[in-house]
Amino acid sequence: MPEDHLPPELKPGQLLARGVCRHLLGHDFVTVEELIPSPGLRVDVMALGPKGEIWIVECKSSRVDFTSDRKWHNYLEWCDRFFWAVDEHFPTELLPDESGLIVADGYDAEIVRMGPEDKLPAARRKVMVQKFARHAALRWQSARDPGLAVSGG
Amino acid sequence: MPEDHLPPELKPGQLLARGVCRHLLGHDFVTVEELIPSPGLRVDVMALGPKGEIWIVECKSSRVDFTSDRKWHNYLEWCDRFFWAVDEHFPTELLPDESGLIVADGYDAEIVRMGPEDKLPAARRKVMVQKFARHAALRWQSARDPGLAVSGG
Repeated sequence: MPEDHLPPELKPGQLLARGVCRHLLGHDFVTVEELIPSPGLRVDVMALGPKGEIWIVECKSSRVDFTSDRKWHNYLEWCDRFFWAVDEHFPTELLPDESGLIVADGYDAEIVRMGPEDKLPAARRKVMVQKFARHAALRWQSARDPGLAVSGG
Repeated sequence: MPEDHLPPELKPGQLLARGVCRHLLGHDFVTVEELIPSPGLRVDVMALGPKGEIWIVECKSSRVDFTSDRKWHNYLEWCDRFFWAVDEHFPTELLPDESGLIVADGYDAEIVRMGPEDKLPAARRKVMVQKFARHAALRWQSARDPGLAVSGG
């Protein structure tokens, strides 16, 4: 019998993202996954804080997952703080010192090192909060109304 | 056999809200339901437009549902435009002329009369877009991660 009402199995990076999102909620940051800040870029986790802070967290499940990422510098201009999230076995010496570091599993996470703050200009923050709102609302609408065909976001 | 993977049955007002949300998406407005703009107020539908417009839609499934609403004037200060949504059998002559009017069912809706525009001050719009974002993201997180205990919003 197909168990089609069970959630789909998550990939390793998505499991890290789930733990990150759970942990960030404890800091009063709400989150979305796979938001596109600009064409060609897709962030693993974008978090919105209680004062409008925007954080980006890239989840790396393996060494090759990190070393094959040629785009991460482009994420910096879309957030106030940038973090890597990895599991406890990841060789963290590979990661640049000047980024934040979160150690995660599928259930929780811990912020080991804060990413340095580089505040977004007000106009870009406004655009990003709206993108975040639209992304979250579209996903939530397609979840609460399965009869709806949603594209974009 | 309990059919626990079917969506729960919606009440008449929630069905109207579903049709309203589907229709507004066609106007590129994303939506959430049951957002609390300030303590003691809970709007049926809040919509966020492509330019940051905030609309509120109150769904009334019957005459008594409307006549027992003593709070609706308090919603006006939280949006750029205010609408009533009712089904095709509702006695629309009861509704104030100076509000917008949407006729809806559970599947779609139509904007019969635009609500007049009374633009939010910039500071309040910023707060409302953030509230909208947090509400949508919390609901979407609890949907995509059923293991999470979420409160507030």
